[in-house]
Amino acid sequence: MKNSWKEECGVFGIWNHPEAAKLTYLGLYAMQHRGQESAGIVSLDMQSAGQPVHRIHKSLGLVADAFSESTLAKLTGSVAIGHVRYSTTGDNSVVNAQPLTSELLSGPLAVAHNGNIVNSSILRTALQRDGAIFQATSDTEILLHLLAKHPSNDLVSALTEVLKNLVGAYSFVILAHDRMVALRDPLGFRPLVLGQMKSGSGLCYVVASETCALDLIGAQFVREIEPGEIVEISSEGIKSSRFTDGTEVAGQANGQTNRKSANCVFEHVYFSRPDSVVFGKSVYDSRKKFGEKLAEESGIEADVVIPVPDSGVPAAIGYSQKSGIPFEFGIIRNHYIGRTFIQPAQSIRDVGVKIKLNPQPQILKDKRVVVIDDSLVRGTTSQKIIALIRQAGAKEVHLRIASPPTTGPCYYGVDTPQKSQLIASQNSIEDIRKYIGADSLAYLSEDGMWKALSSGPERFCAACFNGEYPTSLKGVETKKNTDQKDKSQAKQI
Amino acid sequence: MKNSWKEECGVFGIWNHPEAAKLTYLGLYAMQHRGQESAGIVSLDMQSAGQPVHRIHKSLGLVADAFSESTLAKLTGSVAIGHVRYSTTGDNSVVNAQPLTSELLSGPLAVAHNGNIVNSSILRTALQRDGAIFQATSDTEILLHLLAKHPSNDLVSALTEVLKNLVGAYSFVILAHDRMVALRDPLGFRPLVLGQMKSGSGLCYVVASETCALDLIGAQFVREIEPGEIVEISSEGIKSSRFTDGTEVAGQANGQTNRKSANCVFEHVYFSRPDSVVFGKSVYDSRKKFGEKLAEESGIEADVVIPVPDSGVPAAIGYSQKSGIPFEFGIIRNHYIGRTFIQPAQSIRDVGVKIKLNPQPQILKDKRVVVIDDSLVRGTTSQKIIALIRQAGAKEVHLRIASPPTTGPCYYGVDTPQKSQLIASQNSIEDIRKYIGADSLAYLSEDGMWKALSSGPERFCAACFNGEYPTSLKGVETKKNTDQKDKSQAKQI
Amino acid sequence: MKNSWKEECGVFGIWNHPEAAKLTYLGLYAMQHRGQESAGIVSLDMQSAGQPVHRIHKSLGLVADAFSESTLAKLTGSVAIGHVRYSTTGDNSVVNAQPLTSELLSGPLAVAHNGNIVNSSILRTALQRDGAIFQATSDTEILLHLLAKHPSNDLVSALTEVLKNLVGAYSFVILAHDRMVALRDPLGFRPLVLGQMKSGSGLCYVVASETCALDLIGAQFVREIEPGEIVEISSEGIKSSRFTDGTEVAGQANGQTNRKSANCVFEHVYFSRPDSVVFGKSVYDSRKKFGEKLAEESGIEADVVIPVPDSGVPAAIGYSQKSGIPFEFGIIRNHYIGRTFIQPAQSIRDVGVKIKLNPQPQILKDKRVVVIDDSLVRGTTSQKIIALIRQAGAKEVHLRIASPPTTGPCYYGVDTPQKSQLIASQNSIEDIRKYIGADSLAYLSEDGMWKALSSGPERFCAACFNGEYPTSLKGVETKKNTDQKDKSQAKQI
Amino acid sequence: MKNSWKEECGVFGIWNHPEAAKLTYLGLYAMQHRGQESAGIVSLDMQSAGQPVHRIHKSLGLVADAFSESTLAKLTGSVAIGHVRYSTTGDNSVVNAQPLTSELLSGPLAVAHNGNIVNSSILRTALQRDGAIFQATSDTEILLHLLAKHPSNDLVSALTEVLKNLVGAYSFVILAHDRMVALRDPLGFRPLVLGQMKSGSGLCYVVASETCALDLIGAQFVREIEPGEIVEISSEGIKSSRFTDGTEVAGQANGQTNRKSANCVFEHVYFSRPDSVVFGKSVYDSRKKFGEKLAEESGIEADVVIPVPDSGVPAAIGYSQKSGIPFEFGIIRNHYIGRTFIQPAQSIRDVGVKIKLNPQPQILKDKRVVVIDDSLVRGTTSQKIIALIRQAGAKEVHLRIASPPTTGPCYYGVDTPQKSQLIASQNSIEDIRKYIGADSLAYLSEDGMWKALSSGPERFCAACFNGEYPTSLKGVETKKNTDQKDKSQAKQI
Repeated sequence: MKNSWKEECGVFGIWNHPEAAKLTYLGLYAMQHRGQESAGIVSLDMQSAGQPVHRIHKSLGLVADAFSESTLAKLTGSVAIGHVRYSTTGDNSVVNAQPLTSELLSGPLAVAHNGNIVNSSILRTALQRDGAIFQATSDTEILLHLLAKHPSNDLVSALTEVLKNLVGAYSFVILAHDRMVALRDPLGFRPLVLGQMKSGSGLCYVVASETCALDLIGAQFVREIEPGEIVEISSEGIKSSRFTDGTEVAGQANGQTNRKSANCVFEHVYFSRPDSVVFGKSVYDSRKKFGEKLAEESGIEADVVIPVPDSGVPAAIGYSQKSGIPFEFGIIRNHYIGRTFIQPAQSIRDVGVKIKLNPQPQILKDKRVVVIDDSLVRGTTSQKIIALIRQAGAKEVHLRIASPPTTGPCYYGVDTPQKSQLIASQNSIEDIRKYIGADSLAYLSEDGMWKALSSGPERFCAACFNGEYPTSLKGVETKKNTDQKDKSQAKQI
Repeated sequence: MKNSWKEECGVFGIWNHPEAAKLTYLGLYAMQHRGQESAGIVSLDMQSAGQPVHRIHKSLGLVADAFSESTLAKLTGSVAIGHVRYSTTGDNSVVNAQPLTSELLSGPLAVAHNGNIVNSSILRTALQRDGAIFQATSDTEILLHLLAKHPSNDLVSALTEVLKNLVGAYSFVILAHDRMVALRDPLGFRPLVLGQMKSGSGLCYVVASETCALDLIGAQFVREIEPGEIVEISSEGIKSSRFTDGTEVAGQANGQTNRKSANCVFEHVYFSRPDSVVFGKSVYDSRKKFGEKLAEESGIEADVVIPVPDSGVPAAIGYSQKSGIPFEFGIIRNHYIGRTFIQPAQSIRDVGVKIKLNPQPQILKDKRVVVIDDSLVRGTTSQKIIALIRQAGAKEVHLRIASPPTTGPCYYGVDTPQKSQLIASQNSIEDIRKYIGADSLAYLSEDGMWKALSSGPERFCAACFNGEYPTSLKGVETKKNTDQKDKSQAKQI
Repeated sequence: MKNSWKEECGVFGIWNHPEAAKLTYLGLYAMQHRGQESAGIVSLDMQSAGQPVHRIHKSLGLVADAFSESTLAKLTGSVAIGHVRYSTTGDNSVVNAQPLTSELLSGPLAVAHNGNIVNSSILRTALQRDGAIFQATSDTEILLHLLAKHPSNDLVSALTEVLKNLVGAYSFVILAHDRMVALRDPLGFRPLVLGQMKSGSGLCYVVASETCALDLIGAQFVREIEPGEIVEISSEGIKSSRFTDGTEVAGQANGQTNRKSANCVFEHVYFSRPDSVVFGKSVYDSRKKFGEKLAEESGIEADVVIPVPDSGVPAAIGYSQKSGIPFEFGIIRNHYIGRTFIQPAQSIRDVGVKIKLNPQPQILKDKRVVVIDDSLVRGTTSQKIIALIRQAGAKEVHLRIASPPTTGPCYYGVDTPQKSQLIASQNSIEDIRKYIGADSLAYLSEDGMWKALSSGPERFCAACFNGEYPTSLKGVETKKNTDQKDKSQAKQI
Repeated sequence: MKNSWKEECGVFGIWNHPEAAKLTYLGLYAMQHRGQESAGIVSLDMQSAGQPVHRIHKSLGLVADAFSESTLAKLTGSVAIGHVRYSTTGDNSVVNAQPLTSELLSGPLAVAHNGNIVNSSILRTALQRDGAIFQATSDTEILLHLLAKHPSNDLVSALTEVLKNLVGAYSFVILAHDRMVALRDPLGFRPLVLGQMKSGSGLCYVVASETCALDLIGAQFVREIEPGEIVEISSEGIKSSRFTDGTEVAGQANGQTNRKSANCVFEHVYFSRPDSVVFGKSVYDSRKKFGEKLAEESGIEADVVIPVPDSGVPAAIGYSQKSGIPFEFGIIRNHYIGRTFIQPAQSIRDVGVKIKLNPQPQILKDKRVVVIDDSLVRGTTSQKIIALIRQAGAKEVHLRIASPPTTGPCYYGVDTPQKSQLIASQNSIEDIRKYIGADSLAYLSEDGMWKALSSGPERFCAACFNGEYPTSLKGVETKKNTDQKDKSQAKQI
């Protein structure tokens, strides 16, 4: 149960479907876990009044609340892109809601972005010096400015040129007046997949952050968009090109010459839905293998294995199957929890955790309990959960974390606390154990993680675990300072 | 995953807590699964302006949406009762939202009701003949009318007299101007528990439909309110009495002389939260034992056991543990599903099921799959789920139902389809199997269910499974006719 | 500008029009000034599912906010009644919103009420003693109870019997399952008119509190419903009867033997829209004549006559025409004022008045100003207005009130302050003049008022001016005590 | 009653008041008539977290609906600017809501604009060629871009340079991180006044489109901001400068060498509140004089003079006083009309007009009626009003328009129909008379208008009446084409 480690986006695009906006809505629905603060859809109606028009609807809130039958009905056209977002600032975040839209000389342009531009503050300052205006604080706006300054008639050419300046993580879905473009950064930090389905009038193409969005709308998974690849879909069909040959990646960190890609390993640890296939692997399967590996590495005699639901479930199943210790739902999660919930004053301890998670004495009483969580960031929530498990009568509580200690912040599109608040960056495992009140604590080793993934650090970014940032971090410090100011308002439940 | 079998209510009451309304809000939050159509709280402020006053807030929608900080702030006083409701009629159901309130000569009276009065149409007609006005269609209003006609100064005396007329299922929490009363019908169909906690100014009493509500607010479970018991809480403390001696229960069905109680077995099968203790038993444990028993009775060779989440989970764990076949989450549930969701036109098959449930090919492909669901009512949803599992590549699909065939409608507070729509009332198991498209289908036997519960039909009402209705059904037909008219508007997703 | 004297209702009914609910909506729109707290419509659909059904929608707020296209679309049927209400209590007033609805043995019954039952507390207590339940605090509910106790098959017979018990003011529009009934109390306190228009399928009948509602929907005014008359409209056409012969009116005050009726004179002074014809007279015309009479009685040398807009406008025109002093809009009213408006702290004096009314220095500077207002209740607003006029530079300010001093509270359907807060009941005119800060102050004489109306106290109720209450006030004291408690929460802007 | 001629904005700013945002809210409330589609406030909190911060809240809808206590509470700081807007496009107009905000290198910058940049399409294209991104379609964004390209540390210097490029009408209120700037275009099309009041900590400055906003908050009128003047308010006090010496105005039309200013005469005809003093003249007084002049020029024998309320009232008073024909409110306006109102189907003719305006037969029957309206644009509404007056029994209907025939569209900030829809641009007065169905029709002459204003065309812009556009119209055609596309969606009630 992560509260302080938040994915910032999910993106979606669909080309050539009579219900484009509705399917985008469903796709966003399926990826709601990637961002709950705002949702937006921009459709392209190429038939409207003789010239192509963008129809836009963005709103704060969950997908189900952001759209109604009538707002969807206004998003006419057979092409649409969409976005769900977790935003870190409060009041005016609707200006940051995506897709970002703008009016260029060449026509309307809308962009949906998952990721984070590491050198955005440098690019932003340069653009501002040159007279650019920023409406919002999102780094996505930089792409619009760079494109505006390369007013090629050919969007892909312009992108090829412009993207050389960006350092960082990005999966973009872009909608122009006559084409849709999907692309990933040269290292492929964030996922982006291509799917297709039959449509009344031929073939319909779909792009989405996760395969679960394809599943829901009944589209077939075709393949991942490759790192450094631009996929362009228009009335002339689908075309692929590359904006980098891979040998020379903008801003790639020194000394990582053997790196093939930098897929975010945390997508497998926590972010993605377990039923998605991400970077070619089943997320559920990865998590289950993390649990199995954890059982191998840090097995302990116990009576029951319980997950912290929902994210710890697959790892707990894996741990149980490997260790032979029975799996039980020793903590029940209340899924009715809404976005807002009114806290009573001082009278109830830890109601914020208990409103979601209720340990079951009938399972835990007098038992030696292995608790499986996906990761451990600050330690405050784990401390409360362990206390509740003890109140329920557990004899021993052994916390097993299905990923390595998180020691470094992410600069690639995840909203993480500062390093100083990452408990594992400042404390020994034994100190953490004491702090959270467990009888024993173990993390999955980094090596175990790679084995579970049948892969290694040359393919994944695991900077949050091992500090090996795949790109230069130039520009990050300035940015972090600004962010911290903004984020001081962000609640942490 | 039940869509057509709905619990109608959860009730809550708290006496002597400075944050009475907020704790009621939390208690209702914990019992949200018992009713999602409306929520209401009535507080009792005994200090206000020199005389006791009821403060009322009721609203359609989920608890989190029905109340805000400011509406809760207006519910002053250290006593409150609350209610969540599933309602069957559309437009004006806020008039049916509970607690029902009224102004009697003796002062304000509010009632929260879980259950159903079987002879309500008879009582209602008699009261109307006598000049009574009914504002709403709820049978709860009958209690208010009967009490109004017994204007004793002593609420418990009046209740003792009045309740003799009611046949059926009811757990009531009643708030007068100076006391709170909680009671259960003579057969104890619906659950109701008593808890307590320390409050600044002494002891605080809590009553709730389920123990999960006590857990959340940190109250200790004391005991169940007994069938036929009236618990009265006032400034003079807590008093218990009985309105029936048990030997002569109003409307009890002929020939059921050995009956001790008629606890609704469906609370264990489906309604209650798994972390609640209901009728003295852990619901999670019951469900797990149903699964174990099912494995004993109808085991089959297979590669994987998967639940239909969430309600099938404990039984699937039990089945897996007993059979030794590995348990996996082969279907992933999206918990972000809101109350409303906009269907696309014809383009996507079964999106209504897929929006919630996504089968995982990586787990199911080429496997012999045992699917565990808690019950099977109409069969339509099961048919769709099995089709999705086959699309995901399963080699064989064996559906196991962790309860007996449902053959009879409920008249005790559950919104069930008519008998003709209960697939098991009209078809053989083999016919059902064909209809839903499973390779095999088995239900838990009634006997297996009793063994799992270590109990029997003398204690539980299992009329929906065995047709043995514990009370006279006189008056039911009239009522059902009316209900059917009303319910024709109810959606069935 | 009256802030503390509020009409409580407007009623409307329409029979035999394919857009019955929409026309009711418009009729309520036209009568919005009669009640801004809640609005409601009940339609009668006689074709629905083989039996007549009431469709109900009630909501707090203005008519325009209370109804949407979709809520109106649900109010099917060719018959409807509606109600706008000013309510005095805060939080839960939606239970008091009208039409009140109930389910009687004979079928659904809905009532819309304008007026006030003087002896309601007596009747209420008697009914409660007899076991009746009151959902709301409105006295309208009494009629439902009395009817429920006379379950005649003939609604008009039952009414004829039942209404004998009611003392006070009432115009009722009642909707049964097969007929609509409109009636007025024996003295005809509150207005109610009958209109008609052509409808596709014959003749359409309309009843409304004011003729402006007929005007808007294009209906022809036929006549007033008479005091003591019951008009019954059904598929058999329209029938009139009387429930009192006039010689013996329930509760009529002793010694008022020459009284013919008790039409509320305040309808002409303030409540009704100026474009309505009420009790057979144009309201605009009455007010203008009040102003003329006032000029005759209390003329003064001055440079300009200005109204307190909007209610003082016709009287000011009359005063100007009679006196020859020019009429100007010396105070401009901002009509965009919404229901809520956020006050700044202490920094601005009298912003509550200024937000609505802005005096114009260019008209008032160095002028001798006659200010015309319709009535003067507490004096606090007048004091502020006069201060603003002086700030605008007026040399002299002469306040002229187009009605007599208000010295008594109303018990017939108007929400008035207690007698002690009516400034004229406690103070001499000279004292009031000093308090409000005018150079001179004069009221219209009662005799002048009658002359302006070409009528007299045998026809109108002017109890608020002359203390001659047309009915017994038995029961009033109890009621007022209760009311005062309730009203303590009511804001006074 | 104008429906198709709409002012687009009102602006407000306040410096140094502890309740800056609340007073801005009130100021906007007072100027609600200038724009009802959206409202916005940006405050400047110079104390927040050690550095100045802008707080922003913008919303669609009326001021009263756009802000709540809690949204206002978040607008901290002692400086604020605000804006009300009438927007012409539907769905996403919140992106066009003002104040527009942006993040420049020098800090946050917010702009509130009343007016229209004539050459915006030319400037926009040039900026886009240079790589500028436009978020919205508003021409206000151009100012932000131009400023961003002149990143002087001195805002006034930058403005002085930048404004030379703008041709057209603009009153800007600009909020930087440390100062507030108010300015008007060189010809002073749109009004903007300076006021002041005492504040706890010294002197508080206020700027507003109209003086009625000063009146409400109790500020003293100081003077108009001059055409071509920049007023800068900061912690160092207030400073005035000019960005043009008046001899050489950007884009001034050829041959208008004697022009001193180009104040919009329509502010006096229709837009401004009658209680405002605009361009140094009382609006009420101007309108009254228009009516007097009209009586002189086009007097006719009649029995009664009635205004089309509200905008025709002062002119009707003037007409009445000059002609000696009595003034009456022969048409009553319902002021409760909300933003939305649901039309019935075909059953009622002209309900759209009748919902607002109800003619009174008791005043009009058998009378010769002079009807005064402020202006006549398309003629459709006048036609309906005259028909209603005839239905009310008028013997003769003489329409008098208190302004000259409107023959040209406005390019200076008013949303007007195309020339072809201006009835007077295509038809003779006699043809118009026939079309609207009046017995006679007369307009105020242009000369009469100047006499009433004691001024002339060298001071005012009257291009809508006389076609003399004070500036070059280069760029207008492109813009109009774009606008027409957008406006096709705009409702016309």
